[in-house]
Amino acid sequence: MNTVFTIHTTGPACHDFTHQVAAWLRDLGAQEGVVTLLVRHTSCSLLIQENADPDVQTDLLGWLDRIAPPGDHPSMTWLTHVLEGPDDMPAHLKAAILPVSLQIPVGDGRMMLGTWQGIYLVEHRRAPHRRQIAAVFQAS
Amino acid sequence: MNTVFTIHTTGPACHDFTHQVAAWLRDLGAQEGVVTLLVRHTSCSLLIQENADPDVQTDLLGWLDRIAPPGDHPSMTWLTHVLEGPDDMPAHLKAAILPVSLQIPVGDGRMMLGTWQGIYLVEHRRAPHRRQIAAVFQAS
Amino acid sequence: MNTVFTIHTTGPACHDFTHQVAAWLRDLGAQEGVVTLLVRHTSCSLLIQENADPDVQTDLLGWLDRIAPPGDHPSMTWLTHVLEGPDDMPAHLKAAILPVSLQIPVGDGRMMLGTWQGIYLVEHRRAPHRRQIAAVFQAS
Repeated sequence: MNTVFTIHTTGPACHDFTHQVAAWLRDLGAQEGVVTLLVRHTSCSLLIQENADPDVQTDLLGWLDRIAPPGDHPSMTWLTHVLEGPDDMPAHLKAAILPVSLQIPVGDGRMMLGTWQGIYLVEHRRAPHRRQIAAVFQAS
Repeated sequence: MNTVFTIHTTGPACHDFTHQVAAWLRDLGAQEGVVTLLVRHTSCSLLIQENADPDVQTDLLGWLDRIAPPGDHPSMTWLTHVLEGPDDMPAHLKAAILPVSLQIPVGDGRMMLGTWQGIYLVEHRRAPHRRQIAAVFQAS
Repeated sequence: MNTVFTIHTTGPACHDFTHQVAAWLRDLGAQEGVVTLLVRHTSCSLLIQENADPDVQTDLLGWLDRIAPPGDHPSMTWLTHVLEGPDDMPAHLKAAILPVSLQIPVGDGRMMLGTWQGIYLVEHRRAPHRRQIAAVFQAS
């Protein structure tokens, strides 16, 4: 009972794929257990965040750029991994502090998320990418 | 074998609920497997941290306020999500970089935590909140 | 089906132990399920990061030192937990924002990691340490 979700990205953004996970669990007939998600890359992240006001996502991306600025920012001249462009090493830094794996309890056939929680793929790179998320459901 | 833990908070603080999880596992007769915890909110966090010196928690909260200052701090005038108060967007930022889900192996009927590890709910908001943590135990 | 991996460290560094986890799963005959890892300490971290260019690890450690500087840095005079040395409280801060637990789906007898992903123990302390990582495999 595993699968891979694919998300196409075109620059830094938060992609809500909660509905894809929910649909897959529905198709499985999942009732009680845990769903595990792992993003198979090191320059993007998984995240559970507020799904109400899109400004939250804008501010999150803006803040990440402030604590991990692009490699061509005056404060980042000490970076050594620069061959893949000014957005690559900061993408690894962001990927280190945001989740790479998530586990969500499932009860009564539904993910036990809070009302305002959505599941996101957060893209940190500027160029278009095809991102994969491995998923397993384990009944309990 | 799932449950929901509830914690009442009254401002930024770390709440140790290790004993609640341990008591639940004991009641279940859990022997070997994994316990999964998910906090059902986007402005507080889960955390495994040192349970010895309370100064560690004070310094952690102080540091989080320095890397994600309140919205009325001079360095944060660029924030757009400000309607819910100056502590709301920073709470989402902190919630993005601290854990939202935790998994703890269970062996011989006990969580395989280290000697100095406690399980915490970290509140980021100033107003009182009622926080829920979904939990599942999976035998293996 | 649980075990403990031990890693000896001698100062801040990233230790790739992907092969140890893979060898253990092979010995178990693991086919499909999830492997859960938990580091049993509060001043080092787990991490999934790029295993290609070692400069990525150098830059990651350098950046962590910049956002969570040692306690004897002029910007950190406000710290209260200083008895265990200038590198201790920053180690707790880094341990709060990097993963303490990881879950990796296993399919067809292999961890479903991406091509460039390795599993690391990230040491934050300066003195030598013996670090333990609890692991459980759950078949699904």
